[in-house]
Amino acid sequence: MTVPEVYAGVDIGGTTTQVALCTTELTILSRAELATPAARGGAAMVAAAVDAVRMLLSRTPAQLLGVGVGAAGVVDTRTGEVVAASDSFVDWAGFPVADTIATDLAVPAFLDNDVNAFLRGEATGGAVAGEPSVLGMTLGTGVGGALWLDGRLYEGPHGAAGEIGHVPGFGDLPCSCGGRGHLETLASGRSIGARYADRTGRVATAREVARAAADGDPDARAVFDAAGTGIARAVLIAAGVVDVTTVVVGGGVSAAWSLLEPPIRAALAAEPPVSGQPIRLVRAGLGSDAVVVGAASRVRTELAGVLREAPTH
Amino acid sequence: MTVPEVYAGVDIGGTTTQVALCTTELTILSRAELATPAARGGAAMVAAAVDAVRMLLSRTPAQLLGVGVGAAGVVDTRTGEVVAASDSFVDWAGFPVADTIATDLAVPAFLDNDVNAFLRGEATGGAVAGEPSVLGMTLGTGVGGALWLDGRLYEGPHGAAGEIGHVPGFGDLPCSCGGRGHLETLASGRSIGARYADRTGRVATAREVARAAADGDPDARAVFDAAGTGIARAVLIAAGVVDVTTVVVGGGVSAAWSLLEPPIRAALAAEPPVSGQPIRLVRAGLGSDAVVVGAASRVRTELAGVLREAPTH
Repeated sequence: MTVPEVYAGVDIGGTTTQVALCTTELTILSRAELATPAARGGAAMVAAAVDAVRMLLSRTPAQLLGVGVGAAGVVDTRTGEVVAASDSFVDWAGFPVADTIATDLAVPAFLDNDVNAFLRGEATGGAVAGEPSVLGMTLGTGVGGALWLDGRLYEGPHGAAGEIGHVPGFGDLPCSCGGRGHLETLASGRSIGARYADRTGRVATAREVARAAADGDPDARAVFDAAGTGIARAVLIAAGVVDVTTVVVGGGVSAAWSLLEPPIRAALAAEPPVSGQPIRLVRAGLGSDAVVVGAASRVRTELAGVLREAPTH
Repeated sequence: MTVPEVYAGVDIGGTTTQVALCTTELTILSRAELATPAARGGAAMVAAAVDAVRMLLSRTPAQLLGVGVGAAGVVDTRTGEVVAASDSFVDWAGFPVADTIATDLAVPAFLDNDVNAFLRGEATGGAVAGEPSVLGMTLGTGVGGALWLDGRLYEGPHGAAGEIGHVPGFGDLPCSCGGRGHLETLASGRSIGARYADRTGRVATAREVARAAADGDPDARAVFDAAGTGIARAVLIAAGVVDVTTVVVGGGVSAAWSLLEPPIRAALAAEPPVSGQPIRLVRAGLGSDAVVVGAASRVRTELAGVLREAPTH
């Protein structure tokens, strides 16, 4: 009996690690979810992911071709090491994620930033599959961004391309990054709570503000309107600077799409992009699977490259 | 006797047409300047440029390999036709510039937008020669922009990439394009005059405002400070969206570099880009030759492509 060839996609988040086995067409065959042992350090985090891959392979016989990882923080996609991470991750910066996994599982392994993996997933198997020129935006605790140009991820010389959450032009509020007037001050989960507290004096999570807005609370609606108007501005900036045709929005805050979409579309209707061409705006399609699918897709891309470079027999 | 091989670069502006013969290393061998017969239509404008190329060839014996044209307005770089142009150009939109020149001179001909040609010139033979990732900005009557990624011009799906003069996030003043709050409202020649008039009630050209600023006029200085702060914001936006390492600034207003550079550098020092890496900011190096050199460079690139595609003997 021949077993299917699979890629493993791993999404290492601050709270949860997700692992999935995907076919070579990027369909998820099986999956596991576990608590990220972030406090126990990089070796424990990677070992937990490796154990989950082994467990899935023991239940679903398959030939593992490679492993892709999407992880929060700044990563070096070539060396597969974490460059910088938030304080909640112990011993994560500097950890050789890809090399450790490649040694443990004896297959090639690759590391991406999780926002880049999100966009890779959506652009290969999700809401914007096949589109050549896309800005990806994740509205989570912060606002992440990534750029897909000419049908592939564009990272830029310093790996900073697509960082639409942290460019100026969005008012004057202080940002978590130390700057001012960034989209993150309007449209992240943390900021939606903070902006609601600014208006009402009441502490609330983004989810609670969304619920209040759905119930007609004018302050909550105003907070989401400001987030949507900011997102529209980000869309116009990306369209003007790099002429993307499409923007895909994901992350936890995008669950409140019915609150965000109307102000985004109203702002875009009022101000066409410089190209004069309408921009396609879509909500992410893969939900919480985007990072594992994108991480698996990275493996497919890299192995295809290796095959092309190999001598033909 | 063998004659040198040359490319002709042509810069068709609203007032002046410049023509130059360049070596295959993009050194200008000879040049001509003539008034653009914009009111007499596209055929007359192209015929005047062709006549100038013939005149230069008659004075400087050389083998013409091809002609590149940089022209104001929206152009289709593949067909070599003008797509849209300002009203001051009669019968220019729709005119087949490249085909007409190719027929008249019996060599390949290519058409670029003049801002793209400017950046191509600076990135191949000017102030940013050899740099892979550059935003080009021209501060003229309006503010033009172009983008150089991975060592080549990046135009985007609609040819709108690099349009940094017309993205939102720069205040709320009405822009010539119909939008609001664009960099052009702060940093174009026309806007520098208008912003000075807003403050003082006195009508002045950008050159007169620059002279007043150099003489210590506080209103004139404030206008240039606002332009410089706006340019710095544009630099940060381009660095965040597409991770350019370098910005090159040209156009007539950049002649007032001593007034613009201090506020740009002060704003950049106060707010680092999201990559954390400093951005190289340089004034254009080719002056009014940038478009003709860039247009000639386009010919070189295209002919190299043809050679690569030809069968080897």
